[in-house]
Amino acid sequence: MISLLRQLYPLNRHLVGNDNEKALQMIKMELGDLTIHKYPTGMQCWTWRIPEKWEITSSYIECENGQRFGEFEKHPLHVVTYSLPVDKTVLREELDLHLHTNEKQPDAIPYVTKYYERDWGFCLAKKDIDQLSGKNFKVFIDAMHVPGELLVGEYTIQGESDQIVIVVTNICHPAQVNDSISGVVTAVDLIKILKKGSLHYTYKFLFLPETIGSVAWMSQNESLIPRIYCGLFFEMLGNDNDHLLQHSFEGNTKIDKIALHVLGQKTENFRATEFRKGPASDEMIFDGPGINKPMINLSRFPYPEYHTSMDSPEIINEENLKESRDILCDIILILDRDRIPVPKFKGPVFLSGYGMWIHWEENRCKNSTIPVNEDNAYLRNIALDYIMILINGYRSIFEIYNALKEKSNFPVELDFVYNFMGRIRQL
Amino acid sequence: MISLLRQLYPLNRHLVGNDNEKALQMIKMELGDLTIHKYPTGMQCWTWRIPEKWEITSSYIECENGQRFGEFEKHPLHVVTYSLPVDKTVLREELDLHLHTNEKQPDAIPYVTKYYERDWGFCLAKKDIDQLSGKNFKVFIDAMHVPGELLVGEYTIQGESDQIVIVVTNICHPAQVNDSISGVVTAVDLIKILKKGSLHYTYKFLFLPETIGSVAWMSQNESLIPRIYCGLFFEMLGNDNDHLLQHSFEGNTKIDKIALHVLGQKTENFRATEFRKGPASDEMIFDGPGINKPMINLSRFPYPEYHTSMDSPEIINEENLKESRDILCDIILILDRDRIPVPKFKGPVFLSGYGMWIHWEENRCKNSTIPVNEDNAYLRNIALDYIMILINGYRSIFEIYNALKEKSNFPVELDFVYNFMGRIRQL
Amino acid sequence: MISLLRQLYPLNRHLVGNDNEKALQMIKMELGDLTIHKYPTGMQCWTWRIPEKWEITSSYIECENGQRFGEFEKHPLHVVTYSLPVDKTVLREELDLHLHTNEKQPDAIPYVTKYYERDWGFCLAKKDIDQLSGKNFKVFIDAMHVPGELLVGEYTIQGESDQIVIVVTNICHPAQVNDSISGVVTAVDLIKILKKGSLHYTYKFLFLPETIGSVAWMSQNESLIPRIYCGLFFEMLGNDNDHLLQHSFEGNTKIDKIALHVLGQKTENFRATEFRKGPASDEMIFDGPGINKPMINLSRFPYPEYHTSMDSPEIINEENLKESRDILCDIILILDRDRIPVPKFKGPVFLSGYGMWIHWEENRCKNSTIPVNEDNAYLRNIALDYIMILINGYRSIFEIYNALKEKSNFPVELDFVYNFMGRIRQL
Repeated sequence: MISLLRQLYPLNRHLVGNDNEKALQMIKMELGDLTIHKYPTGMQCWTWRIPEKWEITSSYIECENGQRFGEFEKHPLHVVTYSLPVDKTVLREELDLHLHTNEKQPDAIPYVTKYYERDWGFCLAKKDIDQLSGKNFKVFIDAMHVPGELLVGEYTIQGESDQIVIVVTNICHPAQVNDSISGVVTAVDLIKILKKGSLHYTYKFLFLPETIGSVAWMSQNESLIPRIYCGLFFEMLGNDNDHLLQHSFEGNTKIDKIALHVLGQKTENFRATEFRKGPASDEMIFDGPGINKPMINLSRFPYPEYHTSMDSPEIINEENLKESRDILCDIILILDRDRIPVPKFKGPVFLSGYGMWIHWEENRCKNSTIPVNEDNAYLRNIALDYIMILINGYRSIFEIYNALKEKSNFPVELDFVYNFMGRIRQL
Repeated sequence: MISLLRQLYPLNRHLVGNDNEKALQMIKMELGDLTIHKYPTGMQCWTWRIPEKWEITSSYIECENGQRFGEFEKHPLHVVTYSLPVDKTVLREELDLHLHTNEKQPDAIPYVTKYYERDWGFCLAKKDIDQLSGKNFKVFIDAMHVPGELLVGEYTIQGESDQIVIVVTNICHPAQVNDSISGVVTAVDLIKILKKGSLHYTYKFLFLPETIGSVAWMSQNESLIPRIYCGLFFEMLGNDNDHLLQHSFEGNTKIDKIALHVLGQKTENFRATEFRKGPASDEMIFDGPGINKPMINLSRFPYPEYHTSMDSPEIINEENLKESRDILCDIILILDRDRIPVPKFKGPVFLSGYGMWIHWEENRCKNSTIPVNEDNAYLRNIALDYIMILINGYRSIFEIYNALKEKSNFPVELDFVYNFMGRIRQL
Repeated sequence: MISLLRQLYPLNRHLVGNDNEKALQMIKMELGDLTIHKYPTGMQCWTWRIPEKWEITSSYIECENGQRFGEFEKHPLHVVTYSLPVDKTVLREELDLHLHTNEKQPDAIPYVTKYYERDWGFCLAKKDIDQLSGKNFKVFIDAMHVPGELLVGEYTIQGESDQIVIVVTNICHPAQVNDSISGVVTAVDLIKILKKGSLHYTYKFLFLPETIGSVAWMSQNESLIPRIYCGLFFEMLGNDNDHLLQHSFEGNTKIDKIALHVLGQKTENFRATEFRKGPASDEMIFDGPGINKPMINLSRFPYPEYHTSMDSPEIINEENLKESRDILCDIILILDRDRIPVPKFKGPVFLSGYGMWIHWEENRCKNSTIPVNEDNAYLRNIALDYIMILINGYRSIFEIYNALKEKSNFPVELDFVYNFMGRIRQL
């Protein structure tokens, strides 16, 4: 994952620009295939409009002593993203209205965007601002707003069902890596793993600039809405922090519960928060007005380097990326394999007769081939009774497992339920 | 309000009597109009019967020494309301069976009724009872039970909808003022305010004797039941006490929630109690068997002078009446203006494009014309996302506001929701 | 109850055997009538099969010194129920694999079954095991597995409705008395009491061996399933312990609530537990997969002599049996008499007019013939209002009573509700 991440991160990826295309081509190369959708500047997408393409070549603030700051060539974050061009000499008072810095991170260049405000601006580390001297400053930004095309990359893994699970990551945030190239490379790895097996749902992975990318794609694919089952968004997965699960709007849908289950099993600690109260992102489109499909958002937010030039490869730990990828893979596979078992038997199943009875009294497994944790034999014995009743023709296996937890916190694993379900299927 | 109150309170207002008609004529004079319904004695109203008219001219208890007590001419409460006539000499033992007093308020004449018990009786202050002397007492009550008509005053403000909001106050309780003339004058003021504007619902204000008045009117207007949406009852609003909200039977209907909201906004303190656990009154008809329309009951109950001769103009504070009137007016107007917005947009609204975006990061309103409390910009930003989703075609604006509170206690005002709703209506 | 109990308990009652028939004949004698169903060995009942008949005449373990232990003639529990026959000499190591004891009760012979495992075995008190000496042991069990018939006794009390309440007790557990002959004799007494009166539901009392007996009967009477309303199971009612109510699977059905109500009224203390977490038994069939009729399970579980030779008449207290019988009788009668009152009146009932009004102010019953607890007059007055509203055409009397408790914990008894209901029926 790290090598793709190192290729992608330095690009000046934002809403519409040449580097966005470069990024998608790199992803396509890695995956072998990728459909790239193009939405032209000015195109109406619901209440939104596709913005102009923004290109920048050079910038500086020159003091009277000739010292230069805010050079784009040195770091893309030195210019406010979508800044207007400028070429004039200004007094310090005027300059200050166009300067952005981050007091808490004096060595870092902050990340500022003015997508819809038509203003010019520079971003400087606090330590650079302290070096600005003199009365007059030459300010120069060689940028242009021209017609272009917003690009969205789509990779589909066709499953046996036409129901779609949407997986979204962001390609924007210029010269930053955890936000959100860490999500992109995790998605690429997930695709490689998932396409090897056979899947029930159809998975659509989307690589796009935040918000407007999802608005563009979804508004031009409204016919897919009825087929979307749920969604996952993820980003900021490489830094050292526990996972943060941001729930769907409803908050207690199956994808929410599966995510809670996997995080509970696979991590020491994790945090969970309500819809939009974590790193709010594209879930607002897919789980938003008129679409309303539950979408969770997984990250390791927050981290101190967020939205600054310090969000660089040094803060990425590959082990974190792998752990997050494995968690996402588990969530998807539990979701994908979940089925509603149809009860064929009437009355309690003759467990003793089929070698499935767990002896409760002697706290051991008597003539049983179901592996049991010795200490919990009594509760596992009862859990089988509950499972037999919970198989009612409308509960899925995960929902049965969840009902065991919610009803009485039975100490059984999801595999225990799967194992039993597999054995009684033959009766 | 005070001058109407001073006119109305001295009357011997009870179930059926001449003073009830006088009271309704005074209200009609004040309002310019009032429909007066008449229900004759003996008329069957559901399981009830309209009682006889009761008139009294004079009464006394005369001791052997010629001293007189319990003179009706001195105070109407001296005679048990609906007392039988009496004219005989009795021993103290017999007299005691017909004497009523209030040990806790030794200077006050208590208020006692025997509507359906066919007995005679006097009500005396404890200090008067202590002065009764001798063995024999002449007891005299010149009262009569004759056929008459129970009167109900109805004032209708026609709204654009035929759905009805019922507003009920009581005209009974002889020579008492807080209970419940304070409610009558508040209703009169509300009518004057509300009829100036244009309203959605149709409002029916009822001025009637407690319980039997509502039973009579509702039983003779059964065809209106399907059109009744909800109701408000109020009384005892002039004394110095916090408001007491008595909930409807269901307890969590829209009128309950709006009342809680307004009381929370407009008062320092208030109390709330379950159905019938405050000053139980006419809600038992409208929110009762076979009708079942939610009716709240607002008062400042209890107060020490309740149901005695000390419930007089001295305990009425006009500021209290005005505060209660304003609260009732707010409740009605929020209810009246509440509408279900129909979402016209799909996807999240392009807030930045319409100058409605609240910037969360810098904790300030960036390029936005929505007024915000600076400290809460982050949560207000998220609240807009939630609102956009909560507009789903079946939630009203107040319900959206309430869902924001219940889901996550967002620090936004009802006006914030209204303001946003007004702005996106044009999209 | 004690004399029937003394007759029944010594029998070697298990799944299929001659003593099961003797037991059912004794019950039939006591009741005057009993239908005995017969299900032959090998018969398929859902996923189960009727086991073979097991008969045993003699057994012993003989030490080298001629001393004998484990003699069936001395106590039926000395041989594992359904043990294979054996007749050979074994070393101590092999013997130990077939010996069962209870370390916690060193003087007691434990109760062990091997219904479906095809093994031989002895059960000895710990103190006997300590006396086994020598190297070689002669082991002898004269038992046989032959075709037979599983027997189920059914006693029906026909009510006016075809809806069925199932009452189940177990006839198995050889030579033990609390488990579960105490349940059998309680059921016999209940039948004698209930058949005297006229009942709404039809009651089917089943006397059967645990689990397989219910599986056999229910699988051969599937047409009755739609007519079953709910069920009661009980056992272990003679020992000194509080009652334990094991709830139905749903846990909050009417029979659950009635049982909680009666136990709350009639006992100082009782315990309640979830489905299958008490003495799990035949509720797993009637409240189990495909049947799903709520069945409660009442016992005084646990007790130290459980599943040992010490479960003998000495631990039975007849007063306990009578108390349990009375509780079960109350549960059944409240269930049986519960009806949905149909409201005939509209508006609140004219309580004063019918002598039913409870005066709240003076804390006494004024002109009322409804007996009231003086202290609670205020809340009882309000309770009548709530009852009038709760009579809505779909709530039963017990449900109205329960709603009064759940809504606001009104201090009224079930009889108060019944009394009021009887009086307003005439209006």
